[in-house]
Amino acid sequence: MRTLIADTPTHIGETVTIKGWVNSIRAHGQIAFTDIRDRSGTLQVVGDKKLASLNVEDVVEVIGQINARDEKYFNPKMITGKVEMAVTDVNILAVSQDMPFDIHQPDLNVTLPVLLDNRTLSFRHPKVKAIFKVQEVVIDSFRQALKAKDFMEFQSPSIIPSVPEGGAEVFKVDYFGHQTFLSQSPQLYKSLLVSAFERVFSVNKIFRAEPSVTTRHLTEVVSLDAEMGLIESWTEVRDMAEYVIKFVLDQVKEKCAAELALFNATIPTVPENIPSIKLRDAQQLIFERTGRDCQNEKDFSPDDEREICKWSMEKYGSELVFVSHFPTKSRPFYTYPDDETPEFNQGFDLIGRGVEWLTGGRRINDYQTIMDHVKQWGIDPASIDLYLQAFRYGMPPLGGFAFGAERITMQVLNLANIREASLFPRDMERVDKRLPKIEKKVKK
Amino acid sequence: MRTLIADTPTHIGETVTIKGWVNSIRAHGQIAFTDIRDRSGTLQVVGDKKLASLNVEDVVEVIGQINARDEKYFNPKMITGKVEMAVTDVNILAVSQDMPFDIHQPDLNVTLPVLLDNRTLSFRHPKVKAIFKVQEVVIDSFRQALKAKDFMEFQSPSIIPSVPEGGAEVFKVDYFGHQTFLSQSPQLYKSLLVSAFERVFSVNKIFRAEPSVTTRHLTEVVSLDAEMGLIESWTEVRDMAEYVIKFVLDQVKEKCAAELALFNATIPTVPENIPSIKLRDAQQLIFERTGRDCQNEKDFSPDDEREICKWSMEKYGSELVFVSHFPTKSRPFYTYPDDETPEFNQGFDLIGRGVEWLTGGRRINDYQTIMDHVKQWGIDPASIDLYLQAFRYGMPPLGGFAFGAERITMQVLNLANIREASLFPRDMERVDKRLPKIEKKVKK
Repeated sequence: MRTLIADTPTHIGETVTIKGWVNSIRAHGQIAFTDIRDRSGTLQVVGDKKLASLNVEDVVEVIGQINARDEKYFNPKMITGKVEMAVTDVNILAVSQDMPFDIHQPDLNVTLPVLLDNRTLSFRHPKVKAIFKVQEVVIDSFRQALKAKDFMEFQSPSIIPSVPEGGAEVFKVDYFGHQTFLSQSPQLYKSLLVSAFERVFSVNKIFRAEPSVTTRHLTEVVSLDAEMGLIESWTEVRDMAEYVIKFVLDQVKEKCAAELALFNATIPTVPENIPSIKLRDAQQLIFERTGRDCQNEKDFSPDDEREICKWSMEKYGSELVFVSHFPTKSRPFYTYPDDETPEFNQGFDLIGRGVEWLTGGRRINDYQTIMDHVKQWGIDPASIDLYLQAFRYGMPPLGGFAFGAERITMQVLNLANIREASLFPRDMERVDKRLPKIEKKVKK
Repeated sequence: MRTLIADTPTHIGETVTIKGWVNSIRAHGQIAFTDIRDRSGTLQVVGDKKLASLNVEDVVEVIGQINARDEKYFNPKMITGKVEMAVTDVNILAVSQDMPFDIHQPDLNVTLPVLLDNRTLSFRHPKVKAIFKVQEVVIDSFRQALKAKDFMEFQSPSIIPSVPEGGAEVFKVDYFGHQTFLSQSPQLYKSLLVSAFERVFSVNKIFRAEPSVTTRHLTEVVSLDAEMGLIESWTEVRDMAEYVIKFVLDQVKEKCAAELALFNATIPTVPENIPSIKLRDAQQLIFERTGRDCQNEKDFSPDDEREICKWSMEKYGSELVFVSHFPTKSRPFYTYPDDETPEFNQGFDLIGRGVEWLTGGRRINDYQTIMDHVKQWGIDPASIDLYLQAFRYGMPPLGGFAFGAERITMQVLNLANIREASLFPRDMERVDKRLPKIEKKVKK
């Protein structure tokens, strides 16, 4: 019967069996020490020099007696730091080859390609594990926040029949001889579900065939999406996004203190209400503050994003800021034009620490208006059949928002590259392993 | 300020605003009744005959006073059955066109193609909603069961670089000019993660290009996968699967009583321990019971599955039964051969109500053995680089299991067709809408 390593301090004086990986080996003449690691923690095992013949990362079953350590040997860094095991028997369950790099240093001092080429090894490093602990908490708390508000979780489809808004950045799937595509967003599905379920959310893969390699883009992303109906105004959607983001950050702070400490990271400072500003007002502020005239741009540049965050921090003590009311024609056909200034819409972004964290907005719910927009945006109505169907039979006022799990994880932990925040990052040059170079074709 | 319909009984004597869909309209001379539906429930609204000019499924905002009903008009079928609203004002938020079929009958009496062609409408039917409530509970309780046992949730990739076991039934994705594929299973990823995280699970889309149209197959499926390391024997994996399935069924029973009742369905009867039998023993039993000789078959036929369930029910009072030890060569390369009878492996299926519910097994963890199997199964090691890498650096004894969310939902509710258990079912002939016929090509 196996004992979890974290439970060994409650077994002092008893002989127990532990299982795990050899985390380190230290030989001192006739005596050898090894730390054994399982999912719950690490324990120091003491034995004779035969112990030193193990390899690091061997998988072993170790039988021995749990003894209290002398107080002067307490190790406060280990949850088992007040005990150790005197080994009586070791069975090797799997032998490890020599490591290509040392995974037992406080930092993994390897380049990103080496880290990814050896993904199964880098996963074992505490700082890498910490990234995915944080990501799991982000996703779980997103789910928990929305369930508490009556949102139903749904599974959005990945294979879609058409790409209504043009398909330059979409992957094609051969579907029994038919041309289909991988979904870039659950947007249309989550909206049509509102017509029946009122409030829905999803945690789903989305796929973006952007032909660029940057520190912030992946081709396969975990998208956290929510959509709600019977809203009063766009601010109800923004307030829900605010609630969710604040809940997620609070949960990360509460549940991932050790992980944040490993990265010397803190969650963003946010006041009771996250400030909110219209794009044109923000652009005027930026002009006044910097002399840079961006007042006719349809969106922020990276410099603008950084500047508005500076302003938000100075004026409101907030590292996050909402920006709303983008030019109507610059956003998708379904975005709701503002009633008073219809050349601007009721879409919004959440900007944090100089980059976009989340995007959302109110959507058009009136059938005639959506049909007009479909026409103005040059979209073939047949390509969004199912979506339009929902509008014919009573679609309530609605809106929603979305953010990427990897992007948030990256921002919270201040990672240099989004690939670190994906277990199996895919980009133009890598699908698990690096893709072979292919000759450049001129495409359009 | 909107009041949720379910909360209206706490507002007797007050004037409140509700929002929702017009569920029904009944005119009686000068008086008209309409039931308004939101996500929380349905409320009877009483007004003058103008109310009758609404369409069913219009979306409305209704303002009025909540009054107690006379006891003889209590409606025990509605959570608001002891109150009603005397309307003072109605604002139409969205107008509905006439329905192509009546969605307000106890059963949706339409064919499956009509139901799916009008998916955004069929979603509104209580029995359709009930299916997805059950599915949400299945998925949530799977997650809850495993989190309680220290499993980490991970997001498995969908785009994969190669198909090690042959690719007849796999979708191809054009990836920037490279040939990639859609994942048929998170199997290899969940196993390799065990080498670092010990216990993992995932809720992920898998894709199967099976060129057949049956009542039990979809091309896009929500797969519930778990994998665990440092196991003692294959029975530890089977016991974990048993715990998870029993937990899931208990949760469905507890949280979905109303939904089960709608379908006149009951969760399977299961004793303290689900019986478990080896394939060859089961085949011998079937021969003895029926005279049908299947004793050299490598798997069950549908008749065999039904017969072993009959036996399990008669002998153990269990509608579920584990079958294990399939011929080694009939299962994937990673399945662990039994130590005593290596021509049979330590894989298992869970059979329930005559069909397969879940599949699992112990996997090979020794590097040399897995390399031998890779060779014997004719697999190119380069196609599973990342997977094999994990075995070189200490892979513990491991195993796991998987089941489909739609399949379980279908079985629990006794649905006739798995398409009913998918929000947006995809098959050879449909991706949202029916695909156009294409000329038959002779393929291999």
